Amino acid sequence: MKSAAAKKMLPQDKLVYYFGDGRAEGSASMRSELGGKGANLADMCALGLPVPPGFTIVTGVCANYYASGKQFPAGLKDQVSEGIALIESAAGRKFGDAASPLLVSVRSGARASMPGMMDTILNLGLNDATVEGLAKKTGNTRFAYDSYRRFIQMYSDVVLDVGHHYFEDLLDMMKNDRDVSLDTELSEADLIELVGQYKEIVARETGREFPQDVHDQLWGAIRAVCDSWMNPRAITYRRLHDIPENWGTAVNIQSMVFGNMGDSCATGVAFTRNPSNGAKEFFGEFLVNAQGEDVVAGIRTPQPLNIAGKSADQAHMVSMEEALPEVYSELVRIYQKLEAHYRDMQDIEFTVENNKLWMLQTRNGKRTAKAGLKIAIDMVEEGLITQEEALMRLDPSSLDQLLHPTLDPNAKKQVIAKGLPASPGAACGKVVFTAEDAEHAAKNKEKVILVRIETSPEDIHGMHAAEGILTARGGMTSHAAVVARGMGKCCVSGAGDIRINYARKEFSASGLTIREGEVITLNGSTGEVMLGAVPTVQPSLSGDFSTIMAWADSARALRVRTNAETLADAATARKFGAEGIGLCRTEHMFFDASRITAMREMIVAETAKAREAALHKILPMQTQDFYDIFKVMDGLPVTIRLLDPPLHEFLPHTEAEIAEVAAAAGLPVDAVKYRAAQLHEANPMMGHRGCRLGITYPEIYAMQVRAIFTAALKAKKESIHVLPEIMIPLVMTRKELSVLKALVDDVAKEIFTAEKAEIAYQVGTMIELPRAALRAGEIAEVAEFFSFGTNDLTQTTLGISRDDAAPFIEQYKKLGVLEYDPFMTLDTEGVGELISLAASRGRAARSGLKLGICGEHGGDPATIHFCQKIGLDYVSCSPYRVPIARLAAAQAAIKAKQN
Amino acid sequence: MKSAAAKKMLPQDKLVYYFGDGRAEGSASMRSELGGKGANLADMCALGLPVPPGFTIVTGVCANYYASGKQFPAGLKDQVSEGIALIESAAGRKFGDAASPLLVSVRSGARASMPGMMDTILNLGLNDATVEGLAKKTGNTRFAYDSYRRFIQMYSDVVLDVGHHYFEDLLDMMKNDRDVSLDTELSEADLIELVGQYKEIVARETGREFPQDVHDQLWGAIRAVCDSWMNPRAITYRRLHDIPENWGTAVNIQSMVFGNMGDSCATGVAFTRNPSNGAKEFFGEFLVNAQGEDVVAGIRTPQPLNIAGKSADQAHMVSMEEALPEVYSELVRIYQKLEAHYRDMQDIEFTVENNKLWMLQTRNGKRTAKAGLKIAIDMVEEGLITQEEALMRLDPSSLDQLLHPTLDPNAKKQVIAKGLPASPGAACGKVVFTAEDAEHAAKNKEKVILVRIETSPEDIHGMHAAEGILTARGGMTSHAAVVARGMGKCCVSGAGDIRINYARKEFSASGLTIREGEVITLNGSTGEVMLGAVPTVQPSLSGDFSTIMAWADSARALRVRTNAETLADAATARKFGAEGIGLCRTEHMFFDASRITAMREMIVAETAKAREAALHKILPMQTQDFYDIFKVMDGLPVTIRLLDPPLHEFLPHTEAEIAEVAAAAGLPVDAVKYRAAQLHEANPMMGHRGCRLGITYPEIYAMQVRAIFTAALKAKKESIHVLPEIMIPLVMTRKELSVLKALVDDVAKEIFTAEKAEIAYQVGTMIELPRAALRAGEIAEVAEFFSFGTNDLTQTTLGISRDDAAPFIEQYKKLGVLEYDPFMTLDTEGVGELISLAASRGRAARSGLKLGICGEHGGDPATIHFCQKIGLDYVSCSPYRVPIARLAAAQAAIKAKQN
Repeated sequence: MKSAAAKKMLPQDKLVYYFGDGRAEGSASMRSELGGKGANLADMCALGLPVPPGFTIVTGVCANYYASGKQFPAGLKDQVSEGIALIESAAGRKFGDAASPLLVSVRSGARASMPGMMDTILNLGLNDATVEGLAKKTGNTRFAYDSYRRFIQMYSDVVLDVGHHYFEDLLDMMKNDRDVSLDTELSEADLIELVGQYKEIVARETGREFPQDVHDQLWGAIRAVCDSWMNPRAITYRRLHDIPENWGTAVNIQSMVFGNMGDSCATGVAFTRNPSNGAKEFFGEFLVNAQGEDVVAGIRTPQPLNIAGKSADQAHMVSMEEALPEVYSELVRIYQKLEAHYRDMQDIEFTVENNKLWMLQTRNGKRTAKAGLKIAIDMVEEGLITQEEALMRLDPSSLDQLLHPTLDPNAKKQVIAKGLPASPGAACGKVVFTAEDAEHAAKNKEKVILVRIETSPEDIHGMHAAEGILTARGGMTSHAAVVARGMGKCCVSGAGDIRINYARKEFSASGLTIREGEVITLNGSTGEVMLGAVPTVQPSLSGDFSTIMAWADSARALRVRTNAETLADAATARKFGAEGIGLCRTEHMFFDASRITAMREMIVAETAKAREAALHKILPMQTQDFYDIFKVMDGLPVTIRLLDPPLHEFLPHTEAEIAEVAAAAGLPVDAVKYRAAQLHEANPMMGHRGCRLGITYPEIYAMQVRAIFTAALKAKKESIHVLPEIMIPLVMTRKELSVLKALVDDVAKEIFTAEKAEIAYQVGTMIELPRAALRAGEIAEVAEFFSFGTNDLTQTTLGISRDDAAPFIEQYKKLGVLEYDPFMTLDTEGVGELISLAASRGRAARSGLKLGICGEHGGDPATIHFCQKIGLDYVSCSPYRVPIARLAAAQAAIKAKQN
Repeated sequence: MKSAAAKKMLPQDKLVYYFGDGRAEGSASMRSELGGKGANLADMCALGLPVPPGFTIVTGVCANYYASGKQFPAGLKDQVSEGIALIESAAGRKFGDAASPLLVSVRSGARASMPGMMDTILNLGLNDATVEGLAKKTGNTRFAYDSYRRFIQMYSDVVLDVGHHYFEDLLDMMKNDRDVSLDTELSEADLIELVGQYKEIVARETGREFPQDVHDQLWGAIRAVCDSWMNPRAITYRRLHDIPENWGTAVNIQSMVFGNMGDSCATGVAFTRNPSNGAKEFFGEFLVNAQGEDVVAGIRTPQPLNIAGKSADQAHMVSMEEALPEVYSELVRIYQKLEAHYRDMQDIEFTVENNKLWMLQTRNGKRTAKAGLKIAIDMVEEGLITQEEALMRLDPSSLDQLLHPTLDPNAKKQVIAKGLPASPGAACGKVVFTAEDAEHAAKNKEKVILVRIETSPEDIHGMHAAEGILTARGGMTSHAAVVARGMGKCCVSGAGDIRINYARKEFSASGLTIREGEVITLNGSTGEVMLGAVPTVQPSLSGDFSTIMAWADSARALRVRTNAETLADAATARKFGAEGIGLCRTEHMFFDASRITAMREMIVAETAKAREAALHKILPMQTQDFYDIFKVMDGLPVTIRLLDPPLHEFLPHTEAEIAEVAAAAGLPVDAVKYRAAQLHEANPMMGHRGCRLGITYPEIYAMQVRAIFTAALKAKKESIHVLPEIMIPLVMTRKELSVLKALVDDVAKEIFTAEKAEIAYQVGTMIELPRAALRAGEIAEVAEFFSFGTNDLTQTTLGISRDDAAPFIEQYKKLGVLEYDPFMTLDTEGVGELISLAASRGRAARSGLKLGICGEHGGDPATIHFCQKIGLDYVSCSPYRVPIARLAAAQAAIKAKQN
C-alpha cells in the first residue's frame, strides 16, 4: 500500500470576510480562520469603532496554498473582487480609478501574533494615473507622490525582489544633491523625479515595467504575504514559539487612511497600561504627518501621547493631548472601551486623517513579567477580571525573569556562540577550564565562568564557585543543565560550535580564540555567549509576586516539592514555597573532598568487610547531611533517594588521586586501576546502578538508611518534625523492592530498638523504567509511594541518552520530526501513557498510593497540566522552578474545573 | 502499611500417601504433591508391580518447613506413624523390633528430577539390638553388620555432619590390617569390630552416642532430606534448570529390600532403550550381592544385564540373563509393561532379594539428543505415540548438540576458568589476542582461539578466522556472543576471572599464565575454558534429524527466518531450513578492510558533498553484498536493516589508522581526532544511531537503498526471485518512519525509472523502543511490517545495557531476584506486554500487518511459545538456532491446539 500524499482540502467555501461601516462578517471568536488581526478588526467594527473598511482572506487559503503547490482555490478571485467592491462602496472611492482612487494595505495576520515576521504592503493601488487622481482629490501632489514612491519601494522589495537599498541609495543621492537632510524637506518636484528614477530601477532589475494594473498589484501582494509565511524569520519564530506550520496566515486587505496628508494628520501606537511596569496609565507615542512605519522606523523622534506620559527630556515636545485635543479625547474613550471589552491591556495602532481618527489594530499587549503581575492584580481589584482569570493570563515560565539576574536590555553585546538556554539568568566572568581553577578564583573573590566540554559530578564544587557554566556538549537535561538549574545558576549547554582545548586553556568560537582569564557573558535564557562584560540587572521580588503566589496556592490541587540535596538549595526552595523535598539525591553528598577518598576506598575494597570499614567513615557525615536537611524541612516530607549512579562515577582519574586511594585502601596502584577498568561500562545509564547497587552491595544502602534514621531520631529529640520517605531508585521488579524494603525495615528496627525511639517513615520507589511502569500493580503491593523519574523514563522509553541527544534533537526540531525537546516537556503520548498506566495500576493495587513526579519535567507547565489530568499528588522540581510550578499547578486546576 | 510476611499454609490435610501390596493412595497424576519418584512408586504399585511397601511425605511439607522456620506441621507425626504401621503390616516386620526388624530407606524426590542433588539414607532402623535380630532372622550375621556399618556411615554423614572420610579411613585401615583389598573379603568379626569403631568416631565427633532410637533416626533422616533441598548443589541445579525454589521435595520412606544378602541377591539399573544412540535394546548393568550405591560408586565393575548387551571386553562376564534367568525374564516383562505404560523410554532401578525381584524406581530416562530423535521416531513407528507427542517430547535446545562439534566426553580436561556458554560447540587452538593475529594464523592454517577483553565489530574478521572466541567481559548477548552464534562458532564470554594483558600478550587464570601460542580448549555449551587440547567430535546430521524437522514443519504455524548478513551464514541458515532472512545487519558489511577507510572518510567529511563522494566508493560494494544475499535467498524474503550503530563505532583508533583516514579525506589529522571526540557518546546504545542517522545523514540511507534496488534489479534480470523488505531501525515516532519511507520510495522510483524495471518491496520498521510499541497504531499507518528487536527492547524496557549486565545479572540469579537472564528468555511480563500491545495496536491500524521477532530471543523456545500465543507471523534467529526454532514453533503450535 503506497501512501498517497492527500491534498489538503479547504474546509469552507467562504474565503473572504468583510468588515467596515460598523458591521463585520467575522467575529472575535474566529481567530483560527481570520488570524488575530482580522478577528480583532472585525470585532472593533462590530463595537462601532472607526475602522477603515476591508476584508480578510482566511488562513486556510494560505495553508491550502502550500498543500497544493502554491495554487489559490478557485473561488478566491471572485470573493476578493466582491470584497474590493464592498470597500469601494464604504470608502466612496474606486480601486484603480484615476479620478478617485481607492488605496489599500495588504497585511499578514496569523492565529498567533508573529510581530514583524511577515510582509506588509501599504498604499497599494497607486500607478501613474491614480497618483494624479490622488493628488487632485487631496489637493496635495507632494503627498500623492510621497505615497507613490513609498509604495514602489515597498512593493518592489517585497513582491518583485528588488532590494530596498536601491531605493534608499537614490533617496540619499537626491537629498545630497538638494543639500537637505530630511525626507520632508524634498519638494514635490523632487518626489516626482524620484518616482521616475524608482521605476527605472525596477525596469532595469526585473526587465519589466513596474506593474500599472492595480489588480496585478493586489494579487502579487496577496501571494507575497502567503510566501512570507515560509520566510526563514517566520520559520524560526514559529519554531521558538511552538506555532504549527499548518496554521497559515490570513491576509488582510483594508482601505488606506493617511496620517501623512498634513498637520491635521498623524499616526501612533499606544498601550492601555504601562507594558514595562504595569502602571495604570495610557501610554504611547505618535507622529504628526506621518505613516505608521515612520513611528517604528525611528526616522523622526516620536512625540508623547499625553502630558502625563512626558519624560524629562520630552518636556519640550507637544503631546497629542495638546496638539489634537478632540481626537485625543476620542482615543481615550476608545481605549477605555477596548480594555473593558477585551478585559486585558491592549496594544493599539491608530491613524488620524484630517482630524478623523481611524483604529488600525488592537491586540493584547506584550508586557514584562513584572507588569504582567501588576496588571493582573489591578484588574482583579478593578473588578474587571476574576482571580482565576488573572492566574490563567500569566505565563508561568515568565516568572523566571523575576528570579534571576538578567542582562541589561539596553547594553551592547557581541554574540560569539549560541548554545541551549539550559538554566536561566545572566552571568559574566573570567573564563576558567577546571573546577579547581573556578574554586581557586572564587576564593580570591574573582567572578568566573566555568567552561567545560561537559560536566560531571566531580565538577560540582567548581560549578558552585562559578557565576555561570558553559558546556560544548549536552542538552537541556545534561548534568550541567540539571545541576545549574538546581543551583539557580546561569548555564548555557551544548554550544556545539565552540572548540575547547584544555591543554592550552582556551576555546575558539566564531573565529576568535578566548583564553583563560578573558571575560565572557552568558545569557542562560537565550543560550547566547557574548564576548566581554555585558551589564546585568539584579531581581527583587515584589508584593505582587506574593499576592499571585497566594492566589495560586489557594487554586491549585497539586502539591509542589523541590529537588534539593544541599542546605542552600533546600532553604531557597522553602523560601520559594516548596512543600517538601521530592528528590534528595544522596550521591551528590559523596563528592565533597573530605568524603570522596573514603567513598573510593569503599569502591576498590575487595571484601565486604573492607567496604564496611570505609562506609563507617562516611556514616557520620551522611548523618549530619540528613540532619541538616530535616531541620530546614521541619514539618515537611523529605524523600531521600538511596545511592543511584554507578560506582565508577566516583572513581579517581588522575595518577595522584589513584595513588591516594591506593594508599588509603592499602592496595597496590595496579589493583585500583584494574578495579577501575573492571567497573567501566559501555552504557552507564543502563548499567550497574540504582537498586542494582543496593542489592549487590547491601552494606552501602544499609549505611545510608542508618544515617537517615540516626539523623531523624536526633532531630526528633530537638522537636523537629521529620517525615522521611526512603526512595529506592531504578526498580524493575517487585522482588528488588521487597528485598530492599526488608533491608530498610531491618535497619530501622535495629536503630529504633537501640535508641528506644521510633519515627514513622515510608518506603517507596522511583518509577523510571518502562518495565516498572508496566508492573506497577505488583510493585505497589510493596511500595508506599511512587515517584516518576521522568528523566530516566524518557531516556528509556524513547531510547535517547540525554547526554548524547543534543546533536540530533536540535536537527529533529529543525526538520519538524520533533515538535519539542522531550527532556523539557513530557512526551505525553509515549512516556505519558506509561505514567498514567502506572498510576492507575498502582492505585488499583494500593488505594491512596502517593504519586509524584521528580524529573526535570516537574517544573514544566505543560507537564504539570498532564500531572493534574492524571491525578498525581505532587510535582517536584528544582528550587528556582517552584514558583513556576505553583502557578502552573493553579492553572491546571482551574482548567480542570472548567472542563 | 507494613507488609506482613504471610505464613505459607499447607493446602491439604493429608500429608502422607501409602503404597504397597498392589495398592496406592497416590497416583501418577500427583507429581506436584508426591514428586516424581513418589508418583511413579504409587503408579508402579497400582500396576501390580513388585514394589517394596512405603509411603511418601508430600512436597508441601518441605515447602512449609522453609516458610515456617523449619517446623513440621502438626499432623505429620501421626500420619508418619500410621504409614510405618502400614509398612510393618505389609512387610511382616516391625520398626525397631529386635526380633524381626523393619528397615527403611529415606529418599528425596522432587517434582522435577534432580539426580544426585539431594540426600538418601538406606538401612534405617538398625541399632545394636535390631542388627542382631536381622542377623538371626536372615541367618547372615555378616550381612547384618555390613548393613549396619553402611547405615552408620551414611546416616552420620548426612544427618550428623560427620564426614564420610572418617569412616572410609577406618575401613581402609582395617583392610590394610587384614591385608585384603575388597570390602567383601572382610570377615563377619571384622565388620562387628568396624561397627564399634564407627560408633566411637560418632561419639567423639558429635559428643553423643550414635542414636539407638529408630524413631529418632527416622525424624533425623526426614529433616536431613528436607534440609538437602537447600544444599548448594541443589540450589545450583535448580538455577540451571529453572526449577522454582518453592516446589520443595517429597520424602519417600520405603521398606528396605536387600541385594546384598548373598548370591541369590543382586541390584541393578537399566534403560529400556539405549540412551546413547536410541537403539531399541534392553540395556543395563547389575551386581550380584550388592546394594544399589555399589553400582554407581564403581567399587566393583558391574556386569552386563543380558547377552546382547555384552561389549567385547565383557565377554568373560556373566550376564543377569545367564546368572538369574527367571528373574531376568520377569524383569523383561516388567520393563516392557513400564515402557508401554509410560509410553517413553524408562530408566529403572531394581533389587533382587533371595531371587525375588523388587522394583525400586522407574522414570523417563535421560538420553542424548541423537537417541532422543531415534526413540521418538521409533515409538511413532511402533504406534506407541503420535507424531505430535514425539515432537512435544524433544527438548529443542538439545538439538544444538547435533549441530556443533562437541568435546569427547571421555577425554581428560583441566578447567582453568569458567565463563558464560555464549555460543555452543567446542574449539581448540593456540591463543591469540588480536583479530589481525587470528587472521594471520588462519592464513598459515593454524587453529587459534581469539582471546579479547571484549570484541567489537572491528574484530569480526578475526572472529571468522578463529576456531573460537573467549572474552573476559560481556554477557550472553554481548557482541562476541551474538556474532559467534551467528557464525555457529564456539564462544565463551564474560569469563570474569581471567585477566588479559594485551601488552604482554598473555592472560592469567587459576593462578596460571597463558601466553600467546599456548593451546586452550573452549566448551561453548558449558562455558568451560581448558588448558591444552581436548579432543573434539564432529557432528553429522542423521536421517532422524530430517524426519523430525519435516514433522515439525508440518505442525508449526510460525515461520522461521534467520539473522544473517554474510553469504556463508545465509547459506548455512538455508541449509538448516530458514524461510528467509529476518534481519540482515548492513553495518557488518562496512568493516571489511577494503571498505572501512571509505566509511571513515564519509564520517569525517565536513560537507554533505564530501560525504556523498565517500559513499559513492562504498555503493558498488554494498550492491554486490545485496546481490549475493538475494541470490542465496532466491524466492525467500530478505529483510534488510539500514545502518544502525552510531558512526563512532567505525572510527579509527590507532594513530596509523587516523593518519590513513586523514590522508584519504584530505583533512588534517587533528580534524579527524576532533571529529572522533565530537562523536564520542556517553551511552551509545541510546545515542545518535538507527533512523536518527538516516534522518540527519539522509545520503547514507539513500546509498544503501540505491544498492538494494540496483542489486534486486540485477538479480531479477537473472530470474532470481527477490523479495526485499527494507527495515528502518530505532523508530520512536511515526514521523521518523514517514520521512524515511519517502526517501526509500523516492530512490526506488528514480532507479525504476532509470532501469525501466520494477520490483515489489516493503518498507517496515523495527519495534525496539517502548515508545514505538506504545505508538504502534500510528506507526503501522506507515509501516508495512514490524519486526520486534527484542534485544534493544529488552535493554530499554528494563533499563539494562546488555554489555554491562553480566556482573549483576549473575548475582540477581544467584539471589533469586531474577529467575532467568532476560537477554536469553523474553521477559514476557514487561517486554512481552509491550510486544503484545504493539501487535494488537499495529494490526488494528493495518490488518494483516506482518509481525516478526528478530532479537536473540527469536531462537529461544520459551520465547517462541510466547510469539505463537500472541500471533506473530515469524521468528528470526541465528543460523544455528533455526532447527531449534522450527521444533519449538511446532511445539508451540501443538500446545496452542491443545488449549
